[in-house]
Amino acid sequence: MRGAVLYAPGDVRVEDRPDPRIEAPTDAILRLSATCVCGSDLWPYRGIQEMDGPAPMGHEYVGIVEEVGSEVSGVKPGQFVVGSFWATDNTCEICRAGYQSACVNRVPMGMFGSQAQYLRVPLADGTLVGTPEVPSADLIPSYLAASDVLGTGWFAASAAEAGPGKTVAVVGDGAVGLLAVLAAKQLGAERIIAMSRHESRQKLALDFGATDIVTERGDEGIAKIKELTGGLGAHSVVEAVGTQESMMQAVHSTRAGGHVGFVGVTHDVSLPGMDMFWSLVHLHGGPAPVRRFLPDLMELIGDGTINPGKVFDLDLPLEQAAEGYRAMDERRAVKTLLRP
Amino acid sequence: MRGAVLYAPGDVRVEDRPDPRIEAPTDAILRLSATCVCGSDLWPYRGIQEMDGPAPMGHEYVGIVEEVGSEVSGVKPGQFVVGSFWATDNTCEICRAGYQSACVNRVPMGMFGSQAQYLRVPLADGTLVGTPEVPSADLIPSYLAASDVLGTGWFAASAAEAGPGKTVAVVGDGAVGLLAVLAAKQLGAERIIAMSRHESRQKLALDFGATDIVTERGDEGIAKIKELTGGLGAHSVVEAVGTQESMMQAVHSTRAGGHVGFVGVTHDVSLPGMDMFWSLVHLHGGPAPVRRFLPDLMELIGDGTINPGKVFDLDLPLEQAAEGYRAMDERRAVKTLLRP
Repeated sequence: MRGAVLYAPGDVRVEDRPDPRIEAPTDAILRLSATCVCGSDLWPYRGIQEMDGPAPMGHEYVGIVEEVGSEVSGVKPGQFVVGSFWATDNTCEICRAGYQSACVNRVPMGMFGSQAQYLRVPLADGTLVGTPEVPSADLIPSYLAASDVLGTGWFAASAAEAGPGKTVAVVGDGAVGLLAVLAAKQLGAERIIAMSRHESRQKLALDFGATDIVTERGDEGIAKIKELTGGLGAHSVVEAVGTQESMMQAVHSTRAGGHVGFVGVTHDVSLPGMDMFWSLVHLHGGPAPVRRFLPDLMELIGDGTINPGKVFDLDLPLEQAAEGYRAMDERRAVKTLLRP
Repeated sequence: MRGAVLYAPGDVRVEDRPDPRIEAPTDAILRLSATCVCGSDLWPYRGIQEMDGPAPMGHEYVGIVEEVGSEVSGVKPGQFVVGSFWATDNTCEICRAGYQSACVNRVPMGMFGSQAQYLRVPLADGTLVGTPEVPSADLIPSYLAASDVLGTGWFAASAAEAGPGKTVAVVGDGAVGLLAVLAAKQLGAERIIAMSRHESRQKLALDFGATDIVTERGDEGIAKIKELTGGLGAHSVVEAVGTQESMMQAVHSTRAGGHVGFVGVTHDVSLPGMDMFWSLVHLHGGPAPVRRFLPDLMELIGDGTINPGKVFDLDLPLEQAAEGYRAMDERRAVKTLLRP
C-alpha cells in the first residue's frame, strides 16, 4: 500500500509500505476513506520533537472495515467506522470512568501511521464506532474530524466545564481551538470568546458559535478577557496551543473557581506553583479520551446538527501529503484532509 | 492588649499592642476565646518567607463579639463567632460561587494578628458565623479548628472529590492533612490512605477515619499507593505540604481522571507541563474558601459529629506563644492552641 513516512524534519514522503494484516484476534483492518494531518504531526515535522529514524505518520482515520479478527464482534466487514488516536479496550476501570486515553491496554495509533491506504486497528471492539449505514461523501470530513480534533476540542470544553450561563474563552485558533468553540456552543455556553488574530480563523470561530473575538495575546489578552468579564475572568478557558505563554494566558484569564481545560501538548511548559495556588482555578487536560464522546459526536454529525468538517480547508490526494504538511506548517491551511 | 509579634526568624514576642477599634461601619471587634499557630506561620518563623519588619502574627480565631459597627446586622455583642483567615463580603459573584478566599473585597486577617486578646474583623456580616448559644469550653478547640485547618482540609478533600466509593490518599500529616482525613471520612470515602511516618500522627489519622497508613515517600510512596489501588492510583489525593516533592507525589499517586486537591502553600514549586498532560488528573487548590463550609462544619461540631479540636496537642497561655512556635517548628506539637 501507499503511506506517508517522515524521514527528517520537513521531509515527508509517500511511498510503498507493507499492507497491514490481522495480527491478533481482536484486530480489524480498515480501508481508509480519509485521513489527515494533525497539529501534533508538526512537532516532529518542525524538528521540535526528536525523531528516532523514519516514521510512518498519522493517527486520525475513518474507513470501511475490510477484515476482522476472530474475536471482534462489534464491527463487521463493509461497515463505516471511526476510531480515535488510541486503541483502547473500553472495558478497564479507567476506560469505564471515561478516560480511554489512559486505558491500561492502550496502543497509540500513531505507531501504525494512518496517513495510508490501509490501517490495522488493535482492540477493534473497544476502539471503533460504526455508523448504521455508509454515510454520504459530504459527511466524511466531519466524521474524520471526530477521530481527533473534534473529540479533543470537545474534551477541552468539557474539562473547562463549558455550559449554560458560562463565559468560555478559547486560547488557540487551530482546528482544536475552533472545534472547542463549536463544543462550547453545543454544551450551551452563553458567551464564547475566541482568541485569534487570523481573519479566516476568526470567521470560522464565529460560524461555530463564537460571540466575541479577542486579538490580543499574553498579558494584553488576559486584560481584555478581564475587561469583557467584569474584571473577574472567564468561567471556562480552553487552552489549545501548548506553550508556556498560552498556558499562563489560559490560567490567568480564568476567574477564581473557574476551569481551565488544556489539550495543547505542553512541550517545555512549567506551571509556577504560586500561580496555580493563588489563581484558585481548576486545571484538567491531557490526551483527550475521544472514545468517550465518539458515539454522541457521530450522532450529531449524522443528523446534521454539527459540521466540524469545515476545519478542513485543504483537501489533497494522499500522494500530495508533503504539500499538506507544508501548508499547515506555513499556516496557509488550518487542517489538511488526505484522500488515500 | 497583649499580642504576639514576630521580630525576626525564631523571635516571637508577646507584648503590648494597641487595642483595636471599630474603623468602618461593617467592622466587629472580638474578644478572643482562643487562637492558634498555623503551619503557614512557620514559613516566616523559619526565615523561608521574607519579612518586612516586625509583624503581628496569627489569622485563626474564635471569640465573643464585643462591639459592632453601625451597619453590622448578622452578629451581635455577646455572641460567640468563628471567622476564617480572609474577611470577605460573601455577596460578590466570586463569593456566591463559593470562592470567598478570592472575594473581590477580601482582606487578609493575618495583617491584624489574631494571636492577641482582641481582634478587629472587617466585613463582619460576610465573615463571621455565630452559634445560637455560647458553646461549652470543651468545644472551643474544635470551633477554632474550623477557622482554618478544618476548613482547609475540608476544601482539599472536596477539591479532590472525596466521596462514596472513592479511595483517597492524603499527602501530609500536619493538622490540615489530618483534618482532610476527617473530611474524607465525613464525605463518605471508602478507603482513606494517610501518608505519615510519625506514630502519634498515624494514630490521630486512624482515629479520624484513615483505613491505611503508608510510611514511604516520593517514588516509593507513589509505588505503594499504586500497589494498594490495583496499579491505577487513588481516585482522590490531597496535597497538604506545599513542596515540589509532595506535589509530584500527589500528582503521580492519582489515577488518570482522578482529582488532586492541594492546599499546601506551593513555595518554590513548579509543575512540569508534560507530567500534568500525561497524568490526566484534575488539579484544584489554593487558599481555602473556608467561609463556604463554615456553617455546616460548625453544625457538625455543635452536635458532636466531629471533633477536629483533637489536632491541638499543645495548649498554652498566649504569653507562652514563643514556646508554641518552637514546639511546632521542632515537630514536637502538631498544632498549638493559645489562650489569650
